[in-house]
Amino acid sequence: MTLAPAPVFRMALRVYWEDTDAAGIVFYANFLKFFERARTEWLRTKGYSQEQLRTERGTGFIVTDASISYRRPARLDDLIDVTVALTRVGQASLQIAQQALRIVPDGTNELLADGTIRIGCVELGTYRPRRIPTEILQSIQ
Amino acid sequence: MTLAPAPVFRMALRVYWEDTDAAGIVFYANFLKFFERARTEWLRTKGYSQEQLRTERGTGFIVTDASISYRRPARLDDLIDVTVALTRVGQASLQIAQQALRIVPDGTNELLADGTIRIGCVELGTYRPRRIPTEILQSIQ
Amino acid sequence: MTLAPAPVFRMALRVYWEDTDAAGIVFYANFLKFFERARTEWLRTKGYSQEQLRTERGTGFIVTDASISYRRPARLDDLIDVTVALTRVGQASLQIAQQALRIVPDGTNELLADGTIRIGCVELGTYRPRRIPTEILQSIQ
Amino acid sequence: MTLAPAPVFRMALRVYWEDTDAAGIVFYANFLKFFERARTEWLRTKGYSQEQLRTERGTGFIVTDASISYRRPARLDDLIDVTVALTRVGQASLQIAQQALRIVPDGTNELLADGTIRIGCVELGTYRPRRIPTEILQSIQ
Repeated sequence: MTLAPAPVFRMALRVYWEDTDAAGIVFYANFLKFFERARTEWLRTKGYSQEQLRTERGTGFIVTDASISYRRPARLDDLIDVTVALTRVGQASLQIAQQALRIVPDGTNELLADGTIRIGCVELGTYRPRRIPTEILQSIQ
Repeated sequence: MTLAPAPVFRMALRVYWEDTDAAGIVFYANFLKFFERARTEWLRTKGYSQEQLRTERGTGFIVTDASISYRRPARLDDLIDVTVALTRVGQASLQIAQQALRIVPDGTNELLADGTIRIGCVELGTYRPRRIPTEILQSIQ
Repeated sequence: MTLAPAPVFRMALRVYWEDTDAAGIVFYANFLKFFERARTEWLRTKGYSQEQLRTERGTGFIVTDASISYRRPARLDDLIDVTVALTRVGQASLQIAQQALRIVPDGTNELLADGTIRIGCVELGTYRPRRIPTEILQSIQ
Repeated sequence: MTLAPAPVFRMALRVYWEDTDAAGIVFYANFLKFFERARTEWLRTKGYSQEQLRTERGTGFIVTDASISYRRPARLDDLIDVTVALTRVGQASLQIAQQALRIVPDGTNELLADGTIRIGCVELGTYRPRRIPTEILQSIQ
């Protein structure tokens, strides 16, 4: 179902040398790393660690679709806020809207990238779709 | 303009430890690395190295939009074919369709991921859009 | 010169999916990323950002030698303390001892990896050795 | 035991955007990725895939020590030869010398980085040292 505007989770992170490329900016694939970190921390605030899901239940979340628009380049030493908003919940999948914003000291944050990530719940090993455990569904909404 | 079905460029690559994650599969962001390698090699077959573009002309190509669907997990040691097909050409942008296929010895390749990448031509430094140099446009079509 | 036991800088970081590999542990090269993040934050506490050094002075620090011993595997969701201790200062180089320790809730941290990194001060572009600017030398000791 | 000068295995690879950083050169940790790729391909020429070792035997090789010296920066589009030479064989460990050389068209290759990697054979899961299987020892020497 489509959800009412979701409370947004935020995670701040720093751009390090490892994230940049020879064009002097953050390499495009690395925004998906930033997005993943924020989703993991968001899930942790709901009381679930991914390691725990994996070892206790043999269940994992995998990304099935990702789309991302790059608005402005991010640079070394930038401080970036990455947001997570749950926008759609299915029986075996979640849709999440994410943004990366450069934190500017005067408060006028700048949008660097935004995208939509679709997550599927799967049985580890086979990677077959699996219903999202009820208590997780209840926690995250 | 939209192009007639493009001749497809292919590049084979191997999955190494660095590409995988603790779920035992290729980490989702790393498919964008694979796609980038193939685009770079495709451009090289057209006679352009990105380093040369960058230093001689102050021009670069940056990704402005990426969308990707993950169909099957890729695993350590997999041999993967990454394809590049130019699907749309604008004055300052290109749209490219890409696939990653697992090369199976019996010839029945399996689709692992496919996506669409929009590339913008920019002036390095400012990252302002710039017309794609004419000779590049002629070479790649 | 060799320095008296240095006050140790510490930076905490989390292990994410991107850091792990199919063996279920942090990929060995990624500890060098962790070490670099901590060195950058240590330098920042001294009042220098690397971007500023780069753009204002055309000077940069590059790693000339790295040695690292892996003591225990790090895993997804681990919280890791990375330390930085300046152990030797030359005219154009620094030697830094670093450790990565798993933060265990009961306080009995476990050594995951330790190493020594030699940093050279260079002129960007040519990568020729350059004396470390005096005020940086004064700040970091 | 220490070995007679080993026949050297070579693997060529290309530097892509993902490998570089904002200093315009290959990020220092990424040479360890290059080294790992070459060791994996070397092992493959001996008839062993790491995935096979892992799933069939529950055995894996992990890096216990790495030391590397960076001689010259590598840049985007560089073609690099990575070498593997087995220099010491123990019951549960191997020592390997590796180099990364820039392939220059006129044949005067340039040393970019060289190092020594110590590999331990372990039982996956526990990461306890394990004797290297005899047929592997025979194959690699």
